[in-house]
Amino acid sequence: MTSFATTKTLFHIPDGVIYLDGNSLGMLPKAALARAQTVIFDQWGQQLIKGWNESDWMHLPNRVANRVARLIGAPVGSVMMGDTLSIKVYQALAAALSLNPERRVIVSDSGNFPSDLYIADGLVRLLDKGYTLKVPQPDEVESLIDESVAVLMLTEVDYRTGRKHDMQRLTALAHAKGIITVWDLAHSAGAIPVHLLEAQADFAVGCTYKYLNGGPGAPAFIYVAPQHANKPWPALSGWMGHDAPFAFDLDYRPAQGVERMRVGTPPIIALAILDAALDAWEGVDMMEVRASSIQLSELFIREVEARCPSLTLASPRDATQRGSQVSFHFEHGYAAMQALIARGVIGDFRAPDIMRFGFTPLYIDESDVLQAVAVLEEVINKNLWDRPEYQKRAAVT
Amino acid sequence: MTSFATTKTLFHIPDGVIYLDGNSLGMLPKAALARAQTVIFDQWGQQLIKGWNESDWMHLPNRVANRVARLIGAPVGSVMMGDTLSIKVYQALAAALSLNPERRVIVSDSGNFPSDLYIADGLVRLLDKGYTLKVPQPDEVESLIDESVAVLMLTEVDYRTGRKHDMQRLTALAHAKGIITVWDLAHSAGAIPVHLLEAQADFAVGCTYKYLNGGPGAPAFIYVAPQHANKPWPALSGWMGHDAPFAFDLDYRPAQGVERMRVGTPPIIALAILDAALDAWEGVDMMEVRASSIQLSELFIREVEARCPSLTLASPRDATQRGSQVSFHFEHGYAAMQALIARGVIGDFRAPDIMRFGFTPLYIDESDVLQAVAVLEEVINKNLWDRPEYQKRAAVT
Repeated sequence: MTSFATTKTLFHIPDGVIYLDGNSLGMLPKAALARAQTVIFDQWGQQLIKGWNESDWMHLPNRVANRVARLIGAPVGSVMMGDTLSIKVYQALAAALSLNPERRVIVSDSGNFPSDLYIADGLVRLLDKGYTLKVPQPDEVESLIDESVAVLMLTEVDYRTGRKHDMQRLTALAHAKGIITVWDLAHSAGAIPVHLLEAQADFAVGCTYKYLNGGPGAPAFIYVAPQHANKPWPALSGWMGHDAPFAFDLDYRPAQGVERMRVGTPPIIALAILDAALDAWEGVDMMEVRASSIQLSELFIREVEARCPSLTLASPRDATQRGSQVSFHFEHGYAAMQALIARGVIGDFRAPDIMRFGFTPLYIDESDVLQAVAVLEEVINKNLWDRPEYQKRAAVT
Repeated sequence: MTSFATTKTLFHIPDGVIYLDGNSLGMLPKAALARAQTVIFDQWGQQLIKGWNESDWMHLPNRVANRVARLIGAPVGSVMMGDTLSIKVYQALAAALSLNPERRVIVSDSGNFPSDLYIADGLVRLLDKGYTLKVPQPDEVESLIDESVAVLMLTEVDYRTGRKHDMQRLTALAHAKGIITVWDLAHSAGAIPVHLLEAQADFAVGCTYKYLNGGPGAPAFIYVAPQHANKPWPALSGWMGHDAPFAFDLDYRPAQGVERMRVGTPPIIALAILDAALDAWEGVDMMEVRASSIQLSELFIREVEARCPSLTLASPRDATQRGSQVSFHFEHGYAAMQALIARGVIGDFRAPDIMRFGFTPLYIDESDVLQAVAVLEEVINKNLWDRPEYQKRAAVT
């Protein structure tokens, strides 16, 4: 059984901080710094170029990917690490479109993370083949699922409200109409149980700097369903996805399976740090993470609604419809969040008025939640947010 | 004046190692480990999500890019860091093609690094508009420069032989025919003086893990000539290249200038390490690096030819026609290189028979070169390569 009291000890938690923003950037696992020292000093510094063989840097993306695979219900060998989430969206969408060459509609929704929509828009422009990208409201997606659609591309958990799409149901509806699915798991991986194989998802992508605690800008991942893995000709056909990268052939020949989703030289230091971060997930049962996340979230909602009536819930009230975050509308949300952060309770803000709080059972417990609510109550009910220093907008929100 | 005796002290050099492979993976700068500690522990660990503002992670790619810019003759604000070199090739080539929409020929050459050719092939397939990718021998490139060509895409310095294209001359010839140029500086940046602005190069890309010592898989860079910077609609239109990434608009609107070549969330830890690595380049004059590189290379060639007659020079004999590496043909090159490496002299091997040695004045001096030749002489003249343990091929060469 997962002991969250134990996992909490694996993280570096600054004094006086209650961190409810692991959905944006996960906390620092203590193992990460030690691993950085190993990969930088012992491997790069000592082995130099030999590190590619002696430390098998070449397959580090594979090793890390298989650890991520366990957390998202994917078989060994079906996930690959590298690049950024935006790049992985591009690869997945291009591959998905190629599997449905006669159709010209992509359906996403307005709850998708903007970068996914931007990447899709860029690809559609580049392809210049009359593709239409439809971006309905999340609850209208189902009504657009018909036989004109090539690809359904959704983020499972809404980055603002935590509203969760039903991956299994939507994938089944899509498949019934011959549609290929691309799921963005940015707010799912490590947040909720994901069963990619069981849900028959075709492609999935995600980042590792949120719930997986890989550090700022940590590498992304891509999943390709085993039955598709040898089909798509990669849009980004780089040498690491070549069948024989060190033959230095002039012609590209894709590697077998998800290996072809590799592109350039892998970011070894970042991957090693992520690998160390994943140690905290060893033996952790995602069903228990989910149970704890719901317990913490429900406690938070109950307490905030009881003590801060000017905040209104922006997330679904039904816990099964949410990811691992809770958002509230508050007119002065930006300033209120700054006031909270100044008092050591870190969440974040999303325009126009959303105060967002993430729950990460690996290092957040009930006492953290209760303390956070106490601070929030003070900030809201004493109008502490109404001070000039909290109004100034930072570059990054 | 650059003191290479001083720069050498900035690197961690393992005992008993003479490293002539900085053209493949640069040595570890001592500052890198300390910076890793800062960015991981003090910034990620303590500031958490606030690091984006408090440590201005958001503009770290810009700050690092401007340091790289100085080394490649590019103005401030014309270079951007991120992703891998293969991704940057894709962005540059897609942008270059879009500036020449009526033409359908891309000219590269067989001396280009295969990944660049693979990426071009993938883009051509995806575009599906009848583009032809021509891959002549390097000395035939000039004869293909005519008004049918949209883009001339070359690596300035050949990864196997060190043969150097004349960037200024070929760019001028290309421009006279209305061709856009894309230059890969993988073996140029930090190796030889590069004058992108003066040469009127249109686009350039490069990696930072070779001569710039950023570590295995360090982020890549892209240069866009100022007059083009606001023209291309990015093929990889990610949120970090949006004009207002934190407005979270549903529609993409490219940022001004080279900023639009950003894609996903930047790899902060890797960029911070690269930034520290670039400290070794502070005050270093690329003309002096070049002078020292030529001196070391000429000494190496002279000594090897005098003492190892079974090796034949694969690089141009004229130093002005070479980058900062020297290659020799040797029938048993693979095994000989393994024997050398076993004796602490690290170079590398490129099929079919090339022994490759890189010269990096920041941390290699005349005494290193002479010692390396002494070991090479022993390996070759005593047939030490002819042992079973040196025949076995490693996964990565």
